[in-house]
Amino acid sequence: MRVDLGNALETTPGLTTATLDRLDDRVAAAHERIAGGMADDEFGYAALTLPETADPDAIYAAVDGFDRPEAVLTVGIGGSALGAATLSNALESDVDAYVLDNVDPDDARALLADLPLGDTVVNVVSKSGTTAETLANFLVVREAMADAGVDWTERTLVTTGEEGNLRRLADRHDLPSLPVPDGVPGRFSALSTVGLAVAALQGHDVEAVLAGGRDGMESLAGSLYDSPAYAYGAATYALAQRGARTNAVMPYAESLETFAEWFAQLWAESLGKDGLGQTPARALGATDQHSQLQLYRAGPPDKLVSLIRPTERAEVGIPETDLDGLAYLGGSSLGGLLDAEFEATEASLAAAGVPNVRVEIDRVDERALGELLFGMEAACVLYGELASVSTFTQPAVEWGKKAARGLLGGGDFAEAEAVEQKRELRID
Amino acid sequence: MRVDLGNALETTPGLTTATLDRLDDRVAAAHERIAGGMADDEFGYAALTLPETADPDAIYAAVDGFDRPEAVLTVGIGGSALGAATLSNALESDVDAYVLDNVDPDDARALLADLPLGDTVVNVVSKSGTTAETLANFLVVREAMADAGVDWTERTLVTTGEEGNLRRLADRHDLPSLPVPDGVPGRFSALSTVGLAVAALQGHDVEAVLAGGRDGMESLAGSLYDSPAYAYGAATYALAQRGARTNAVMPYAESLETFAEWFAQLWAESLGKDGLGQTPARALGATDQHSQLQLYRAGPPDKLVSLIRPTERAEVGIPETDLDGLAYLGGSSLGGLLDAEFEATEASLAAAGVPNVRVEIDRVDERALGELLFGMEAACVLYGELASVSTFTQPAVEWGKKAARGLLGGGDFAEAEAVEQKRELRID
Repeated sequence: MRVDLGNALETTPGLTTATLDRLDDRVAAAHERIAGGMADDEFGYAALTLPETADPDAIYAAVDGFDRPEAVLTVGIGGSALGAATLSNALESDVDAYVLDNVDPDDARALLADLPLGDTVVNVVSKSGTTAETLANFLVVREAMADAGVDWTERTLVTTGEEGNLRRLADRHDLPSLPVPDGVPGRFSALSTVGLAVAALQGHDVEAVLAGGRDGMESLAGSLYDSPAYAYGAATYALAQRGARTNAVMPYAESLETFAEWFAQLWAESLGKDGLGQTPARALGATDQHSQLQLYRAGPPDKLVSLIRPTERAEVGIPETDLDGLAYLGGSSLGGLLDAEFEATEASLAAAGVPNVRVEIDRVDERALGELLFGMEAACVLYGELASVSTFTQPAVEWGKKAARGLLGGGDFAEAEAVEQKRELRID
Repeated sequence: MRVDLGNALETTPGLTTATLDRLDDRVAAAHERIAGGMADDEFGYAALTLPETADPDAIYAAVDGFDRPEAVLTVGIGGSALGAATLSNALESDVDAYVLDNVDPDDARALLADLPLGDTVVNVVSKSGTTAETLANFLVVREAMADAGVDWTERTLVTTGEEGNLRRLADRHDLPSLPVPDGVPGRFSALSTVGLAVAALQGHDVEAVLAGGRDGMESLAGSLYDSPAYAYGAATYALAQRGARTNAVMPYAESLETFAEWFAQLWAESLGKDGLGQTPARALGATDQHSQLQLYRAGPPDKLVSLIRPTERAEVGIPETDLDGLAYLGGSSLGGLLDAEFEATEASLAAAGVPNVRVEIDRVDERALGELLFGMEAACVLYGELASVSTFTQPAVEWGKKAARGLLGGGDFAEAEAVEQKRELRID
């Protein structure tokens, strides 16, 4: 992973090299804190040691009984789904991967009608074993399998904590299972069993993903100038302090579209607290040049755009043409066009004074993805240290969970009563 | 379409009924301006007359020669793709719909390898006939068809303006073609040939979509209290004025995920200018409760959340279970759970003082989608009037187009030189 901050200098908001030099002392102190947390396996910081502590053999062993299935279905939500989906959607495989991470009846019905249930592995993922959406979906999937004459106990992998419903279920039915590591919040679990089991089922090289993560670990250092991940974390923090309220993350690769979603969770849930935080906006290049770019360039100067690309792509030539005014395209390639648009967009933002940061990886493969995911996690942890927020918790989501549970008759909660008292101003 | 502003009252930022009452005089004046523009078929405003002026018979006639294909591929970008994709992804069909709206060689290669080219209709969409991405992709698709022994002239529909490359191509090869209406910017073209041809190819009821649009037209009135679309436009404008810089659009329906993308283009490209505008953030309920909600609830008070749902859903029961602590789910349904989460999230945001607006449609079908798309377009036009911006133009995207063209050798442009002079600050 390489980071280029050149286009965040002297923009609005913007950095100067003097800003970065001053910040670098704080980066050094934060790095010590982070390295200490990693060494002591502290809650959250432990996530940054996963490239060394995750056990690929355990993952391979757990999936070994499933002989190259036609499809894999992840039943999980949030951090229990996004890491796996990021890898699935980035890497090609002849094992199709699906995710049930919502409780939408129309979607669930359509998906279950299409899935080859007899040759699908269901990976149900919930650390606590009580996540309402995940368990509800799992019950529905299990019933669909029974209705289709499929023995669900032969087709289910369980990824969960040491205790709880799902652990007991796995024990009772002797299901293959994987542990969710301790001390790792869901959004930081991509490089653990949670993110890697599906990759293994799809035939991807899990060890290479972890090797990429270790590349990222090795590049952490006490100066932002020596560590691409910290450079990204420090620059986004400093820009946010100066008014970049939105971080538009714009990969120039369709295969990284889910990565932008994963990033959005990481950034929003880790840093959005105490009235602080930077709003992630998911974008996609070049497509969103025809959608969001007008706003980024000419709207309120409260944005940073993170442009991400692989430097190696497949070679697809654009055929020669006699269509008027398009001859310049002929003989070029789709990748050449996409890269020209990447650089043009960078320059176009810079010319309008909008800060943008370039993040490059060599290609979209297991190793580079491992490094990219690790790098963004480390950037996020650094940002959290600099902002002095509690990076690894998510207290604000509890209120709604209680309210929903109360509404469904799962107990008495004052939050559910607040729902009943909703203020109305209806226009029909 | 129904709008409920109750949870945007007395939040931070927030509205009062007095604010809305004062604003209503300006809504009346803006409505006169809009109605006048529609009556005179003025540029942009003409888009709001499409439910009456679009000709479903012409669309049916153009696609009539394609006997129920296995798949439809839209080759277009931005407004030339998103309207059609919104309808495709919302409505079920046994004709699969794909979109090539990027110039990613890896993605294009994978898609072309999977497509049944001999039974796919390619709809190439570009008003000018010169959009670089679209034409490059079209040339690649045409070559892939030739390589597969498919006569592309038998499988191509052209949707373009009255003149230009694509029009000439259609004439030369006698291809079925549809006109892009005059006076309608791409992002406002969902209810025209641009958005509806694919729907017709997929067997959807195009007349019902337009009837829904007419429902929306009829509900426009000189007061925000009488018009759901204007209520939404006025409230989002007033909230933006008071600090809601981000509008997180969160449909509680997987089938509306692309609608959120369509909305993001509409909002960003129409309103993001002169340093003004509101940043659309695409979210999805309930999934993003486990991702973005922490930030929305506890991050900077600079957001509005728009929660959208259909009130009718498929019935998928959650099976009874003896799993500890989950008995409350059994006997409920996925839809019941999703609706409880919708209402819990609304209340949870309100309890934290975060403004949120409820938008409801009866169900996800052709008619309701037509009304929803029209309603959001009208809301956007009203917002633009209230903010005094040039809603229907997108001047800020031109710079990058010239730069990219220059980089590819398509002419001499100063913008391309600026790209070469990029400032660097690399951290490797």
